[in-house]
Formats: sequence, structure tokens, C-alpha cells
Amino acid sequence: MAGNSFGTLYKVTTFGESHGEALGGIIDGCPPGIQLDFEAIEVDMARRKPGQSAIVTQRKEPDSVQFLSGIFEGKTTGTPIGFIIPNTNQKSDDYSHIKDNYRPSHADYVYDQKYGFRDYRGGGRSSARETASRVVAGAIAKQMLPEIKINAYVSSVGPIHLDTPYQELDFSKIESNPVRCPDEKSAAIMEEYIRDIRKQGDTVGGVVTCVIQNVPVGLGEPVFDKLHAELGKAMLSINAVKGFEYGSGFSGSEMKGSEHNDLYNPDGTTKTNLSGGIQGGISNGMDIYFRVAFKPVATIMQTQESLDNKGNITPMTGKGRHDPCVVPRAVPIVEAMAAIVLADFYLINKTY
Amino acid sequence: MAGNSFGTLYKVTTFGESHGEALGGIIDGCPPGIQLDFEAIEVDMARRKPGQSAIVTQRKEPDSVQFLSGIFEGKTTGTPIGFIIPNTNQKSDDYSHIKDNYRPSHADYVYDQKYGFRDYRGGGRSSARETASRVVAGAIAKQMLPEIKINAYVSSVGPIHLDTPYQELDFSKIESNPVRCPDEKSAAIMEEYIRDIRKQGDTVGGVVTCVIQNVPVGLGEPVFDKLHAELGKAMLSINAVKGFEYGSGFSGSEMKGSEHNDLYNPDGTTKTNLSGGIQGGISNGMDIYFRVAFKPVATIMQTQESLDNKGNITPMTGKGRHDPCVVPRAVPIVEAMAAIVLADFYLINKTY
Amino acid sequence: MAGNSFGTLYKVTTFGESHGEALGGIIDGCPPGIQLDFEAIEVDMARRKPGQSAIVTQRKEPDSVQFLSGIFEGKTTGTPIGFIIPNTNQKSDDYSHIKDNYRPSHADYVYDQKYGFRDYRGGGRSSARETASRVVAGAIAKQMLPEIKINAYVSSVGPIHLDTPYQELDFSKIESNPVRCPDEKSAAIMEEYIRDIRKQGDTVGGVVTCVIQNVPVGLGEPVFDKLHAELGKAMLSINAVKGFEYGSGFSGSEMKGSEHNDLYNPDGTTKTNLSGGIQGGISNGMDIYFRVAFKPVATIMQTQESLDNKGNITPMTGKGRHDPCVVPRAVPIVEAMAAIVLADFYLINKTY
Amino acid sequence: MAGNSFGTLYKVTTFGESHGEALGGIIDGCPPGIQLDFEAIEVDMARRKPGQSAIVTQRKEPDSVQFLSGIFEGKTTGTPIGFIIPNTNQKSDDYSHIKDNYRPSHADYVYDQKYGFRDYRGGGRSSARETASRVVAGAIAKQMLPEIKINAYVSSVGPIHLDTPYQELDFSKIESNPVRCPDEKSAAIMEEYIRDIRKQGDTVGGVVTCVIQNVPVGLGEPVFDKLHAELGKAMLSINAVKGFEYGSGFSGSEMKGSEHNDLYNPDGTTKTNLSGGIQGGISNGMDIYFRVAFKPVATIMQTQESLDNKGNITPMTGKGRHDPCVVPRAVPIVEAMAAIVLADFYLINKTY
Repeated sequence: MAGNSFGTLYKVTTFGESHGEALGGIIDGCPPGIQLDFEAIEVDMARRKPGQSAIVTQRKEPDSVQFLSGIFEGKTTGTPIGFIIPNTNQKSDDYSHIKDNYRPSHADYVYDQKYGFRDYRGGGRSSARETASRVVAGAIAKQMLPEIKINAYVSSVGPIHLDTPYQELDFSKIESNPVRCPDEKSAAIMEEYIRDIRKQGDTVGGVVTCVIQNVPVGLGEPVFDKLHAELGKAMLSINAVKGFEYGSGFSGSEMKGSEHNDLYNPDGTTKTNLSGGIQGGISNGMDIYFRVAFKPVATIMQTQESLDNKGNITPMTGKGRHDPCVVPRAVPIVEAMAAIVLADFYLINKTY
Repeated sequence: MAGNSFGTLYKVTTFGESHGEALGGIIDGCPPGIQLDFEAIEVDMARRKPGQSAIVTQRKEPDSVQFLSGIFEGKTTGTPIGFIIPNTNQKSDDYSHIKDNYRPSHADYVYDQKYGFRDYRGGGRSSARETASRVVAGAIAKQMLPEIKINAYVSSVGPIHLDTPYQELDFSKIESNPVRCPDEKSAAIMEEYIRDIRKQGDTVGGVVTCVIQNVPVGLGEPVFDKLHAELGKAMLSINAVKGFEYGSGFSGSEMKGSEHNDLYNPDGTTKTNLSGGIQGGISNGMDIYFRVAFKPVATIMQTQESLDNKGNITPMTGKGRHDPCVVPRAVPIVEAMAAIVLADFYLINKTY
Repeated sequence: MAGNSFGTLYKVTTFGESHGEALGGIIDGCPPGIQLDFEAIEVDMARRKPGQSAIVTQRKEPDSVQFLSGIFEGKTTGTPIGFIIPNTNQKSDDYSHIKDNYRPSHADYVYDQKYGFRDYRGGGRSSARETASRVVAGAIAKQMLPEIKINAYVSSVGPIHLDTPYQELDFSKIESNPVRCPDEKSAAIMEEYIRDIRKQGDTVGGVVTCVIQNVPVGLGEPVFDKLHAELGKAMLSINAVKGFEYGSGFSGSEMKGSEHNDLYNPDGTTKTNLSGGIQGGISNGMDIYFRVAFKPVATIMQTQESLDNKGNITPMTGKGRHDPCVVPRAVPIVEAMAAIVLADFYLINKTY
Repeated sequence: MAGNSFGTLYKVTTFGESHGEALGGIIDGCPPGIQLDFEAIEVDMARRKPGQSAIVTQRKEPDSVQFLSGIFEGKTTGTPIGFIIPNTNQKSDDYSHIKDNYRPSHADYVYDQKYGFRDYRGGGRSSARETASRVVAGAIAKQMLPEIKINAYVSSVGPIHLDTPYQELDFSKIESNPVRCPDEKSAAIMEEYIRDIRKQGDTVGGVVTCVIQNVPVGLGEPVFDKLHAELGKAMLSINAVKGFEYGSGFSGSEMKGSEHNDLYNPDGTTKTNLSGGIQGGISNGMDIYFRVAFKPVATIMQTQESLDNKGNITPMTGKGRHDPCVVPRAVPIVEAMAAIVLADFYLINKTY
């Protein structure tokens, strides 16, 4: 009933259920005069879309975005950018079996309780398909901030972790494999693991790491709208996210001040960066990096107990085409939300 | 220049620097007719205030709140509640040594860069003293929601972890020791550790766990304003926080769906609660629990390199009275921010 | 770059230029479970659309709305309602003559100055075509509040005034004539006057009066979001509006307190209603009534001086199909904005 | 329960009842580095305060503002500016006679209905004393925008109108008489009229005209947050306001397009200014001018019928010290709200 807008000056509002006519959104606040690279937008859409590789859901959704306003002769006009992403591959029958059932660890039950009934087709509004609109808004935000480099990648799949510090990774390799892990050896192991999981009819969680470089000093609005607080909210608003940490994160809580403090170089940069590029909620010019934890997808191809709306526990087996592991497709979504947050603070910071 | 309000319907706006005349705030949106328990507010203030025990900063600040409006004959009137917390123990000289210096891992540098200059006394607006206003707003939010039980406690101090599941802890013991850890044995070890750290002139981080019980089903506003996303933002907006996870958190990312899914009981409750009381961003009636990671306080009583505003690296030794470990005093702040988030969503949910 | 959303809980965001692909919007906050009457929505759309009678612009725009989300089996779901109104009758050539010209009393010049360039086709975002999206959002708001009766009508066309108090008018006659004036005699004179004005290639302003009945006591949020302040903003945000007054309005400023005060009946109603149904910014249960002044349409079919973007004054003659008088088509827009304001305050008031 | 904040980037939140401890507010978003002229703030406070002349209420309220934060060494720091205005002249007994009574055309009844009970002392939150906080925020907004000149004056008192166009008035004379009318002859007649009204124990309404000069082109955010729409809301949010018109206003609705259009000069200025300095919701660089209608103060010193909370009609005679005519004291409030609106749009416009 609320909660479908994000941002203050670069403000994104989205709509759409997985099985309605279309998804879409409005970007209000994009500055005028930005020459849009539509291909780059489609590239990010393609990175998110189903069916892109053997280890993600095999649903086929073209996920093509149609811009309806706010763009004239290829440039943003400063007026709101409206866009839609038609739903062309709706197989609503796939979901008739869940019409009266609440799937475990899905939003079915709470939607029914909160709204009084629900659009049961494909999760309705709670479907991760909603994130397609975020990717569009994020792709434009990236183009608004061409100097800033945002790179996300998969750093864990289930128990398999890539522990190499991001500084030693080659981000250009992220897209070289379907897992979106820049370390090829780890990527291969992760991919194998996901294939196994899928064969078991199971799913697995993972972690996406995101690194933001070339951020100007000064972004973030304390005390409540600290840069990392908005980044955290942005990430936690993505489906299936269970945790967020930046800089030293949870491991920083085990450290001493004498170890954790980042000493300055004469130019204001710091020798270490346990702070993660943010001090007191404001970017300090160093790299911003953070980790986002995703739970395993709830829909599994095994038989599980579910609850029906009459209070009966009934067995249910997942149908439809679902991801065995969500993190490869989550990478562009993490980047998109990061870009939206930065675009918003960038605009606010221009008012000083 | 912005960012000093939190919430949509239960909206808290704060002001104040550590060494100005006073801190304070305005709570707009508290419903009328709530009989306030002023003593309970003072209890939470006392839990946050400096000087309360041997393991926290020895600054003496009475931290007494004065309500200026919105209350008539002991009850809220539905109009904005204005309040101030006078600063009575300002020792600005304590800070003259940092006037031209940027302390490592402090906000000094970024404030100077963003705003052009800074109120250098005690960190100014970036001081954790700002959180006193949050505690006031949170204490009233708690009274707005008397059925909901919010209990936070210290679950880690540096490398010392309390791994007991919260269900096995006795929350009535939280206030029995200065660490605010409900397990007395762990509390003793943690306290000893903090004393050692202080002797070293050092500081240490820690983790606060928060458990929220008796939450009605239906709180939270997807897709962006998910309940856990707002809780995450609220926690990350507290000084020194580096990470947030709820339910299974980061460890959930290592699990399989078949392990992670919470199966239903016939009454809609679940047998397990890896979800952490929230599905799809909406409370499901189970306990909400989350963990908040705090970094070590940056001001240490050892000599460190700092940067002055002419680009020179100069040695600096911390002065003033600072906390060796922030988590004992962070417990009421975590509770307060949780209460504010719940109060806001509770009001929004009444509109359905 | 901002400013395209209206409302706090019933929040409407719109997009679209007159000559882009489509207009549209998102309604976030409509409660779930409302059985929509789509025909009633189309009726309001038809009341606003061009070409409906001989005294309005003869452009033919079907103005059919397509709902893309937030509705399932005919009922609102509580999730955002996305909709589009395709632009099917774009004659961009009609506007090539204004590409480099600033029409007098149009927004051409300020858009160019503010945004750096403009979508010159048909006024772009500043076109009154944008109000079609408001009518959709207002039509749904009306259905959310079935008890409340909102009736707007034309009370002035240029110098011709209908001075009859609204209590003596038969609102069922509003739609009986193309002017939308419920007094048939006045309507005939107004219609004749508009026909004359059109023959002269000129345009004329007018006034729309709006009466809202059966409003519950308590809507409005002082001190800034007073009910009449939001109604005023809503009306002033409609293209061509120059003034707003409610209750006694400007004439009330000439009165004495002893004349102006509305004395009570024992049931809390008042004997007179100079207050216009609102006291201190809060509805008091009496009829709300207000007047909205519209200037004459700036595009006239006479030759006028315009400015080109090189600083030359050049003669220009209006082309295209424009309204000689905007008020007949403004009636449903005034009603729509009133409904949106009431829906928003209605939801906020449920939180008490 | 909401509605006590105004603005997006220059955001003012106020609190306080007429008979509580203090009024006050928080200005969030004032840019850093503004050298404040505290005397100028006090001058505006003095222009609003009671007891300043023989024709306003004789209450004595020192109305001195205390700044608590956001200012360091005389300059704004970019952090929120908290301030209070203590209530020092509370005569609550003056109001005991209205405890159970609803005064005609006062907010007593609606507050009781909306909130369940009310702070009956002096109107509580609905008292015009609340506007003192607005004057503080407006005085600082003026200093943020030193080039922009805002001058308001009384143009009508009851039936006495000053019809001279503002261009022919000498604004430096506004403060030369207690009415705040720059035409001395009209001022004298108005003053005499107000004295008469007071002798009768009656009150009278009036009109304040406001002229804003040197506004840069480009302020305002269509489509909803048009410059005049926000100005209108700002003015309508002031106690006792019944109407707002800008530029040609209601009289513009009687005109033809050929008369109303403002033709350009080669430099982009216009030969006439019926538009009132705003086109399409965006400032065009010409003078902005508007008129604000105030109703007569409801509290009169004559015996009137009132309603008690048991449903009885009872006679009541006004007590206390009230204004016979509100417009002389409203002048600085109109200016303050105008300054707040401009400051907000000025900051938003910097983001383009």
C-alpha cells in the first residue's frame, strides 16, 4: 500500500506483478541532457534475465524495456522517465496448484494476511521479477555517473567462498562465466556445485560482493540517511537478502581500535580501508565495498509440507522454472540498487 | 543538509551537536491519548548515558529530557512532541587539540570536505551523543506498542561470543551486569576483556543481538520499504555500525533451500524460524531477531598518526573520556531504533 | 526533475509528454479489495477528453486507459496500480513551427532555461494532456470513498457568472450541456459566448466551483498539511489555474467576525457555513466548497509576437487544435484532484 | 499526527502549543557557511509579535528565539538548526471558560473529534502563535537568498482596499505605520477602521499582497510541485487564510487570451506580467506577486452562541487578548513562508 518508491531526488517508483500485463516504473529526477546508451541498458537487463545460462531458471522472458516518456532525440529531458517491461511469457497455470496454498518461506501467507487476498500467480508483487524495473533505473543511474565504477560479483555459493581480496581480482572476468565470479577456478567449482544442487531438486544461497570506485568525497546525509544506511536498505530490499556488511563488517566487530583505524596519507586517502570508503555516513573517496547475503530460493523441486488456507498441512512439490541459486542473476540487481543510491546522494550533494 | 528525519507516519527529526546548547528532536505522528510513563523514558536514557558503569566512558552527562509540547496532563495530544536534552557537561577545551586535525577513522575529514568547515568540538553532529534523541523517540514508540516486546543484548565483545540461541536466554538478566549480556558467565568474561582493553588504551568492537516478540502479522511495506530493509537502515544509521543480518543472516547464504525453509504449523506459525519473523518484507508473527555489528571506537588512548588540514601527518594521542567498547551503551539505542521502525509500520498498517 | 508525485499514503506519480509514446502513472497506496468500476473511470476520462463537444478542442484522442498491475479479478490488490494512456493521435508536424520559438505565456521559455532544451512537441510535459493521468487516479480515489460526493461545475466563463448558491443548483444537470454548468440558462449564454470567442480566434478564462459532501469530520493534518492547503496546492497544480478560494474566500476578508462566525447547532453542525467545511485545517463535516480560477488558454488563432531562441521578436499564429475555453474540460480534473487529496487524508486519518 | 514539516531540501518541522513550555522547530537542509544576521531574525520576530502597536493584541510575549544547534561561530554548519521560543506569558486561566466549550469558527470542535480530546489552553496547536517558528525559519531562508527581495504588505482591511499597483508603491514605507500598508493615506484609514472595529468588540479580515523580486529563472518543479502551487499551499497553511491568487488571479479568469498573454521583450522578459512571474509552474524571472485573503479572527468580544461538549448551546463572550485584525501581524508570516518555498526550490534547482 506504500513502499514502492526509492530515493529523494533520483526517485524510482515501480509497479508490476510477475503475471500481470507488464512491469514498469517511473524515474523522477534524472537530470536533463544525458545521452542514453540504450544498448548498455539492455546489457544489464540481459544479465538479470532468466534463461541466460544453464545454471539459472529456464524461463524465457525477453525482458525488453519500452521507454514511454522523458527522452527526446536520445537524451533525457529532465521530465519523468516512464517505462514498461511487458510480461510475455505468463504461464499462469503453472501456479494454479498454489492458489489455496502457502508455500514455506514464501510471502504467500503474509500477503494474504495483510491484504486480505492475493494475486497467487507467480508470487505476484513479491516475485523477484519486480527487480527488472530496478535494473532499468540503475542502468540509467550508472550513465548519470560515468566516472563512478560499480562492479558486483559472486563471492560465495553455499559453502564455497572466494576469499581473495577484491583488489587482487580482475573485474573484467566477471562476465566470463555464468556464475559471475571473477576467479575462474572458484567459478568453475561454484558452477559445478550449482549443477549438483539442481540435480537434487534443491537450491542454495550465496553472497554478492560489490565494489564502488571513484566516488567523490561527500556523498551521504547523516544522521539517518548515512550512505551505508541507504546502501544497506537498498540491498536488503532485494528479494532473498538476509544480511549486509560494508568495510570490515562483522569481522570488524572482533577487532581493536588500534588495528581497525585507517591511518591517513598526506593527500587525505588512507593507508588501509577497513572503513570501506565511508566515514560517519559520508563517502571519503576510498573504495566502497560491501557484501550482501542471499538465502536459498524457497521453491525447491522436492516434496515439502505446505499449509493450505483452511489450516491443513499438505504435501507440495515445486513446479515451474526456478533458479537453483539466485546470486548470478542478483549481481546486476545489486549494482543497480547501488547506482540508484549513489545517483540520489550525488544530486543531494550538489545542493551544498 | 538533509537526512535528519526518520519514518513516514511516526516521524522523528533530531538536531544537536555534542557541544552545542542542547540536543533534541520532534516526534511527529505519535497518536493522541497515550498515557506516558516518564520514568520508563528516563530508564532508557540512563541505560544509554555515559558514566553508568566502570566499563563505559566516565563523562558525566545527566541526559535529562525536557518535553516542550505535544503532551497535556500526562497524555500525548496527537500534536508534535518537541523535546530537548541540554548539554551540561561541555568541556570544549578537551577538543582544542583536534581543531586542525583529522583523527583517523573519524568523520572529521569528510565533514570538512562536505560542509567546508566543521564544528570540531567533540565530533559535532557526528558524535554518538546524537543518539540520545533517538532513545527518547524510541521510548515513546515502545509505549505506543505495549504488546510488542523488544529486547536487545550484547552477544559479542571483540573475539568473545555468546553463541547460545536467544530462546535459551533469560532476558531479565540483561540489566544485571554492566555489559548487558544475559549470560552471566559470558558477561563476566566480556567485562574482564573490556577492562583489559581499556588498560591498553585501546578499544574493541562487538555485536548487539535484538529480539522482537509479539509482532502482529502484516508490518512492512514491500517492495522497497520491507520491514527488514527499514530495520537494517535504522541500525546502520547508528554510529559505528558495520553490518546487519536478520534471521539466518550470512550463515543462511551457505544453506540449501531444503534446510532453510520454515515449515508451517496448522495455525500459520512455523516450526523453525530461519526467516527471522519476516517473509517478503512483511512480519509473519514469529519472533524477529537480528544482529548488529559495531566497530571499535576510533578514539584510542595510544599515540597514532593523524592528518592536519595542511596535509601533514602528525602524531596524536586521544584525550577526553571515551568508551573502550561501545556495545553496552548501544543496547538501548538498538532497541529504540527498532521501536521507531515498528511504530511507523504499525501506523501505516492501520490504513489497510 | 522532481515534483511528479502527489500524496503521502494515496500517492500518485505520473509521467508522459503530449507527443511521446504514452502518458501514464502509478497509484501507490490504494487499499486492497476495492471492486473497480472500470466504466466509471472511462466516463471521467471521456469528460476530460478532447473532441467531446463543439466548444472544446477538436483533437481526437481516444484516451483509453490500460491498467497493467495492482488489479486481480477486478479488484485492487493493494500493490501499485500501473497504467498507461497511449498517445495515438500525435501530429508532431503541427508543432514544427514552434521548435525554435517561445510562445507568449507558454512554458516554452522557462523549460528551455531550466532544462537546457525542451521537447517542443505540443508543450511536452507542460501540456494539459498530462492531466489525463490525474483523472484516472482521481476516478479510483472516488471509488475508494463511495460515501463522499464530489461535484464540480463551471460557475464562470469570462465575464459571465453564475451567482446562484450551490445549494440551489441541481448537480444532476451538470452533464446536460457541453459547458458543464448546472444552470441551463447560464449554460446557454456561456456556450454562446465561447462560440463567439472561438470565431474571433481568441480564448477566454473561467471559474470551476467544486462542492464536496458527506466528508467525515477529522480529515486534514495541521499545521502545514491543512486540508484546504492541500486542496489549494492540488488545484493550483492544474494547468492554467491562477487562484483558489474556499468557503467565504476573498469576500470573507471584507467581513467582520460577528458576521463570519458559523454558529453551532446542538449536533455539531453549523447554521451557516462560511468556513467552507474546514476549521483549523480539519474537515468539520459540513460541505466543503471552493472556487478555482483558470486563465484563458495562451494559444490563440490570432497573430501575436513571439520570441525565438536567438532573441528575435517574430510574429506567430497559433496552429493545432486548441480549446477556446478550458473550464468545461477542467471540471473532471478538479474533481479528480479533490478526490486524490481526500483519499490521502482519509488513509492518514485511519492511523489515529 | 503528521503534517508538521514543510519542504523537501530546506525542510522545516515545527512543534509547540500556545500554552506549553515552548514553541520551536528544526530547519534541516540549510547550507553550511551562511553568516547569520541574528538581529534581522529578531526584527522579523518583532514584526510578528503581539503587543507591538495599539491595533494588535496586547498580549506581551517576548518571543525571543534561542538557537540550540547547527550554528558555530555565527555561521550555519550544514547540520540541523534546532531552536526554541519559550512561552513566558502563559495565562492559562484565561482559557478555563472554554475548557468544555467549542467556540464558533474555531478549531476546538474538530480537534476534539479528531484527536479524542484537546489541549484547550489558547487553542493549543491551532493557535496562531505557532507561526512564530515559521518566522524564524523564513528569516534564515531570506539570508540564504540575499539577492531575492520579498516584500509583503497589507492591501485590504475589511472593505478598505488599496488598489494602487505594487509598482507604484514605496515598499520602504511598509514599516512606517502599524497597519503595514505602504500607502500612508490608506494606512491611516485602515488604522482608524481597525480601532473602530475593536471598540465594537468585533474583528475584521483583510488581504496581504506579497511581491518577490530578483527571482532567478527556473524555480519550481512541475507537474505537481509547481512554484505557485507550493506558494499557495504555504500561504493556505497560515491560520485564517481563505484564498490565494497570483498574477492576474481571479480577475484573469474574466479575460481573453489576446489580452492576457504577456508578450516578450528580446531579452526574455515580458512587456506585461499578468502571469505573475511564473509560467507552467516555473519562475520566469519577472516579479512574482500574489494576494492572500485572511478571514476575521473568530474570537470576538461580543456575546455569541457556543456549543458545549454535552450538546448544549450556551452564550459565550470572548476573553483574553486577541487581534481585532490579523493582517498587520500576518505580513512577516507571509514573507517567511514565501522565503521557505523559494529556499527549497532554489536548492532543488541546484541539482540540474
